[in-house]
Amino acid sequence: MNRRMVLYMVGNVTKLEALLLLPGLITALVYREACAIDFLVAIGVSLAVGFFLTFVFKPSSKVFFAKEGFVIVALCWLVMSAIGALPFYLSGEIPSYIDAFFETSSGFTTTGASILTDVESMSKGLLFWRSFTHWIGGMGVLVFIMAVINNLSDRSIHILRAESPGPVVGKLVPKMKQTTRILYIIYIALTLLNIVFLLIGGMPLFESIVHAVGTAGTGGFGVKADSFASYSPYLQWVTTIFMFIFGVNFNIYYLLLLRKFKSVLKSTELKCYLCVIASAVVLICINIAPMFDSVGEALRHTSFQIATVMSTTGYATTDFNLWPSFSKSILFMLMFMGGCAGSTAGGFKCARVIILVKKVRREIKKLLHPRSVTSMMFEGKGMDNQVVSSTSSYLVVYIMIICVCFLVISLDGFDFETNLTAAVSCVNNIGPAFGAAGPASSYAAFSPLSKVVLSLAMLFGRLEIYPMLIAFSPSTWSKK
Amino acid sequence: MNRRMVLYMVGNVTKLEALLLLPGLITALVYREACAIDFLVAIGVSLAVGFFLTFVFKPSSKVFFAKEGFVIVALCWLVMSAIGALPFYLSGEIPSYIDAFFETSSGFTTTGASILTDVESMSKGLLFWRSFTHWIGGMGVLVFIMAVINNLSDRSIHILRAESPGPVVGKLVPKMKQTTRILYIIYIALTLLNIVFLLIGGMPLFESIVHAVGTAGTGGFGVKADSFASYSPYLQWVTTIFMFIFGVNFNIYYLLLLRKFKSVLKSTELKCYLCVIASAVVLICINIAPMFDSVGEALRHTSFQIATVMSTTGYATTDFNLWPSFSKSILFMLMFMGGCAGSTAGGFKCARVIILVKKVRREIKKLLHPRSVTSMMFEGKGMDNQVVSSTSSYLVVYIMIICVCFLVISLDGFDFETNLTAAVSCVNNIGPAFGAAGPASSYAAFSPLSKVVLSLAMLFGRLEIYPMLIAFSPSTWSKK
Repeated sequence: MNRRMVLYMVGNVTKLEALLLLPGLITALVYREACAIDFLVAIGVSLAVGFFLTFVFKPSSKVFFAKEGFVIVALCWLVMSAIGALPFYLSGEIPSYIDAFFETSSGFTTTGASILTDVESMSKGLLFWRSFTHWIGGMGVLVFIMAVINNLSDRSIHILRAESPGPVVGKLVPKMKQTTRILYIIYIALTLLNIVFLLIGGMPLFESIVHAVGTAGTGGFGVKADSFASYSPYLQWVTTIFMFIFGVNFNIYYLLLLRKFKSVLKSTELKCYLCVIASAVVLICINIAPMFDSVGEALRHTSFQIATVMSTTGYATTDFNLWPSFSKSILFMLMFMGGCAGSTAGGFKCARVIILVKKVRREIKKLLHPRSVTSMMFEGKGMDNQVVSSTSSYLVVYIMIICVCFLVISLDGFDFETNLTAAVSCVNNIGPAFGAAGPASSYAAFSPLSKVVLSLAMLFGRLEIYPMLIAFSPSTWSKK
Repeated sequence: MNRRMVLYMVGNVTKLEALLLLPGLITALVYREACAIDFLVAIGVSLAVGFFLTFVFKPSSKVFFAKEGFVIVALCWLVMSAIGALPFYLSGEIPSYIDAFFETSSGFTTTGASILTDVESMSKGLLFWRSFTHWIGGMGVLVFIMAVINNLSDRSIHILRAESPGPVVGKLVPKMKQTTRILYIIYIALTLLNIVFLLIGGMPLFESIVHAVGTAGTGGFGVKADSFASYSPYLQWVTTIFMFIFGVNFNIYYLLLLRKFKSVLKSTELKCYLCVIASAVVLICINIAPMFDSVGEALRHTSFQIATVMSTTGYATTDFNLWPSFSKSILFMLMFMGGCAGSTAGGFKCARVIILVKKVRREIKKLLHPRSVTSMMFEGKGMDNQVVSSTSSYLVVYIMIICVCFLVISLDGFDFETNLTAAVSCVNNIGPAFGAAGPASSYAAFSPLSKVVLSLAMLFGRLEIYPMLIAFSPSTWSKK
């Protein structure tokens, strides 16, 4: 492995984090908050670590392969979370560093799981930084670097593959740099649109920005203890719709820009995403209608909560932990599914579900007609057998990670429901779970060990497991 | 599809059921119980249905293919459960036919989930029949037919494949009829050995037989309300060991008979099965030791409960629903794993877990070295890619069945833990679950709809999904 290149890239990303911390610093300065000094220290640490790494490990060869790509991505995200936790920790507003690390990796991985028990007392600068990490993590920080750095080598596809979610990483246009730029432009435009819609509804500017970046990254950090419960129905609907929007593959928006409406309508993943949403909304709305004054209100809460779970955002307008079993069961299954590939949403991804369902169909055909030759189609193209096989391997490794996380956190002695859903929620980057980790509670009561494991589970989930697995494997670091 | 052949085979199996009901009738006569008359009626119905089907649907062509094999197996098991439920229902000891059907399919599928709230008041004839269904279902009734019928066509491999558990159906000897005979001889011998060991421990003959056939089939129906809790430690240890024994691939015992000890020691699946058991015993024993007077007692209860879950039997010496979360989490994961392929145990099977773990390893190798060519080995042989692919498809369809079952039963409004673990327990043919369906309770409180769904879930699980899926698919029955 080209270790120098790995550490050099990590150094570059660390330097970039100094830049990303600036908006937090500015917010703190605008509101004349004491935490500004903590942002300055964090920026200093970023720059020091970044320049140290890039200076000491300047690589003699810039050649790197898939393995380096995975390790770079995993290390960058770990280091970003470790440094990003500093403002919370130094300000004393999150007194434990493990808690601060949990909160920051929850931010970058767009999970939105929080250990805060009193979010409303936090400084505005820290609240902004907390949600802004969602926005950074949503699209991917290395993708960002690729969008802005000019001298991209062909090798950087290894990094893009390692950081981007979904079974297939597609290029919109032949040049990768342009692809990433287009994605970022769409991302910024949609975020601005979200801010405008929230402002129209009378939400103050600061809160609009915080919620829009949290929605765009499908994260879920907000500014109020009751999340979205006390906002007006208009603001709740706007957020519902934007959560759904950010759970859609961004390629769809590019196709819309190119006016290729037919291709959009043909997208299997989009159809599946919308069908699942519609069915879930109908079933849950019927189930919970008696709990609310009107069908309209039930529909609003149903849509919001389904949007929050499907897009893996994590805002809430009501405590779904108190819903009837049937609705909770549906939500539990949606937790696994997640949004579309190529969106900012987490989860297993609709595209993978579709591929696996198609695989089962082919399997049954093969059982009945052993000599038949069948090909699989997805989004109008023939599916490579390798992609199908990778997708099912991903299912296995995904289940394994959930199992390990579930097992370790059950040492804390919470009930079965809390343990299992907290593990599922963190691996899928959702945030709230059921039981003691429900929307009305927080992750504060978990032990430090569980918090570290859940932080890692979020990183495993966001980076789709392999980068972290490879970075943590001893054979990656052996001298051979 | 050759429908006549399908119904003809179902008729043959129904006739056989009359024969299988005889031991129940004899038991009832020995104990001079009124239910003898109900057994006679059930035998009459079996014969009538059987002769009707074989007479009316005598096939012109005996040719059949994979599809017919699956449908025959699914229909046979459904009809067997429907007729096997008659003695319970007619005697009035289980007043609802749905409950009786649940109990009987739980028996044939070797699940051991019960709707009885007062098992000790049941007639001895019915108690025997209840456990004997485990013994019949354990090895498979169609496998039995193949062992005794002489004019086997080559096509019957389709039936064997459809009924036998595990990713690969191996023949021990070139002739299939001989293979099935050897399997049945091992099965009978081990059952007799189990009876002898129980008798030595002072268990009455009737109870010894009932428990031995229940253990052999890895079922779990007993005669006492507290299952095995009131038996002596010796009897509990004997049952623990026999539960583990019946969870092992029967090929291993054949190899032992042939004195091929080296091949036995090389078996990856056996090693995996034993390692998982050993690790689980150590972890849980440490976790629950404070609940018991001595480490020896904790070890006995731990081993028994792990045996019951791993071999998917379902007896209990203590209520594991009251164990600490960590132990429950381990048990929950063991519920999925189940025993070895080619045993009477249910579950996903160790062999499949091994194949999938190897697949993930290969996937990671491929990610790091995209052009590498890797082959997979299992039990000393190269793995066919088709088997690997089928195994991962099986995982997908297995998860789907659990999801559907979980969703439907959650309509009853039990808590999340009960719903999820009851679905998992029934699909994996274990029996007891957590929460309201724990070892100390029963499935009596579920709604009729849930009972039907859980009965089907048990059949899906025992027959490894595809036969039921294909039998229930409208395209199977379309005229085209």
